[in-house]
Amino acid sequence: MHNTKLTVEYDGTNYNGFQIQSQTKNQTIQGHLERVINMLYGEKIKSIICSRTDKGVHAKGQVINFHHNKNKFNSFTLIKAMNANLPEDIRVIKVENAAPDFHSRYHAKRKKYSYLIDNSIAHRPLLKRYSHHIPHKLDVQAMQNGGDILLGTHDFTSFKGKKGLTKSPIRTLYNLSIEEKNQFIYFDVEGNGFLYNMVRIIVGTLVKVGRGQQPYQHIENILKKKDRDFAGPTAPAHGLILEKVYY
Amino acid sequence: MHNTKLTVEYDGTNYNGFQIQSQTKNQTIQGHLERVINMLYGEKIKSIICSRTDKGVHAKGQVINFHHNKNKFNSFTLIKAMNANLPEDIRVIKVENAAPDFHSRYHAKRKKYSYLIDNSIAHRPLLKRYSHHIPHKLDVQAMQNGGDILLGTHDFTSFKGKKGLTKSPIRTLYNLSIEEKNQFIYFDVEGNGFLYNMVRIIVGTLVKVGRGQQPYQHIENILKKKDRDFAGPTAPAHGLILEKVYY
Repeated sequence: MHNTKLTVEYDGTNYNGFQIQSQTKNQTIQGHLERVINMLYGEKIKSIICSRTDKGVHAKGQVINFHHNKNKFNSFTLIKAMNANLPEDIRVIKVENAAPDFHSRYHAKRKKYSYLIDNSIAHRPLLKRYSHHIPHKLDVQAMQNGGDILLGTHDFTSFKGKKGLTKSPIRTLYNLSIEEKNQFIYFDVEGNGFLYNMVRIIVGTLVKVGRGQQPYQHIENILKKKDRDFAGPTAPAHGLILEKVYY
Repeated sequence: MHNTKLTVEYDGTNYNGFQIQSQTKNQTIQGHLERVINMLYGEKIKSIICSRTDKGVHAKGQVINFHHNKNKFNSFTLIKAMNANLPEDIRVIKVENAAPDFHSRYHAKRKKYSYLIDNSIAHRPLLKRYSHHIPHKLDVQAMQNGGDILLGTHDFTSFKGKKGLTKSPIRTLYNLSIEEKNQFIYFDVEGNGFLYNMVRIIVGTLVKVGRGQQPYQHIENILKKKDRDFAGPTAPAHGLILEKVYY
C-alpha cells in the first residue's frame, strides 16, 4: 500500500464545506478530490482529511492523505492531473509520499488559522471574499488583551459550537495575535487543535470586546463558565482561512 | 460650483474597463459611478477620471472628480449612498471636497501600479482573480536587472500599446521593484504617468528576460528602437492593480 499526502488550497465560497456529506457529495471539496482520485487511480479510495472546514471557509494549506495499491504517478504528474480535473477554485499545491502509517488528522501537531476583518467604511472589493466587514470602531488593543487571556491550555467548551462532537474540550493556544494595517484587522491563531467553530467564536467574542460591549477581562469568566451561551456570536465563515498544518 | 473627489476600489473582472464607451456604458466602472452620481444629485454630471484602466484591470485607488451645483451630502452620507447603489465589486472608499480647479487627471503627479505573478505549479485559488499564472522557472534577479534599465526618464514608445493616443511618449519611472515571496512575484511600478498598456508590456518583456528568452541587457536596445514590436507581449490584465495616485 502506498500513502500519498496532498496539500490543498481552495476558495470555499461556493462549497458546502470540506467533508463529504451523503446528500451534497459533489458540492464539497473532499467530494471533488475523491472523485478525481478515484478516476485517476481506477480504485475506490477513501481520503482522510486533516480539518473539516465549514461551509464557506477557505484554506491555503488543507491536508489530506489516501492509500492506494499502485504508484501510478510521480508528484509532478499527479499534481498536474489532479488540477486538470478539479474546479478552478480547488487546487492541489503539493504532493508528497507519506510513511505508510501517516494520518493527516491524528498526526497533526499544530494548526494555524487566519481571520480577516475589513474595518473600513466600505467593504473593499479586492478582499471581499476573504474578509468580514465591520464598519464600526474597534479597540484592537482591548481585543488583543482579551486574546492574551486565551493563550495556553484551557477547557474551551464556551468556545465550541453546539453541533461539535469532539470528546475533550481541552486545547492549547500557542499564538493569538491581532494586528491592524490600512483599516484591515488580521487575526493569527495557532494551536494544537481547534474545536468546532472555535476560531470563529473567539473572533466573534473579541469583536464584542473591541466594540466596547464587554471589558476584555470578561474573557476569563467566559472560559470559566464552560457554556457556549456566554461567549459572543460565531463570526462569519468567509473571513476564515486554514493557513497551515504542522506535522 | 462644488468639486468632489472620489477614491474608488474595484474588482475589474466583470467590467469592460473604466471609461465609458458608447455601447457598453453600464458595463464600465465609470458608467456605474455616473449613473449613481446623476441619481443622487438629480443633475446631469460628467465625471473626470484619473486613469483609464483597461478591461479586467483592478484598482485600489482610482480617482475621479465631478462638479455639481448643490452640496447635498456630507462625505459620510455620500460614501454610504454611493455604495448602497453600486455593484458590490465597485466601492467608493474615500470622499473629499476638492478645490474648484482640481482635475483628477491633469493634476496627478505620480501613479503606483502593482502586478502579481503566481509562479507556483498550480494557479492558487485565493489570489487567482488578481494574479497571472506562470508555472515556469523565472530568474527574478535578471528581471530586476532589466527593470533597472527602465528607471528614469525615457521615450517609452516601445512599451506603448498600438491603440494608445497619447502625444508625448516621454515618461519617468521612479521605481520598479520585483520581489519573490512564497512563489508569488510582486512588481511595484511607480512613475509620473504611464502610456497605454505600458505596465503590462513592461511585465511581459521582463518575463521574457526571466525565462531566459533574452538577456536583460536587451532592454536597452528595446528602448532605443522606439518600436512596440521589439518589446515582449502584453501581460494579461487581471494581474494589474492601480494602487494609488499621488497629487
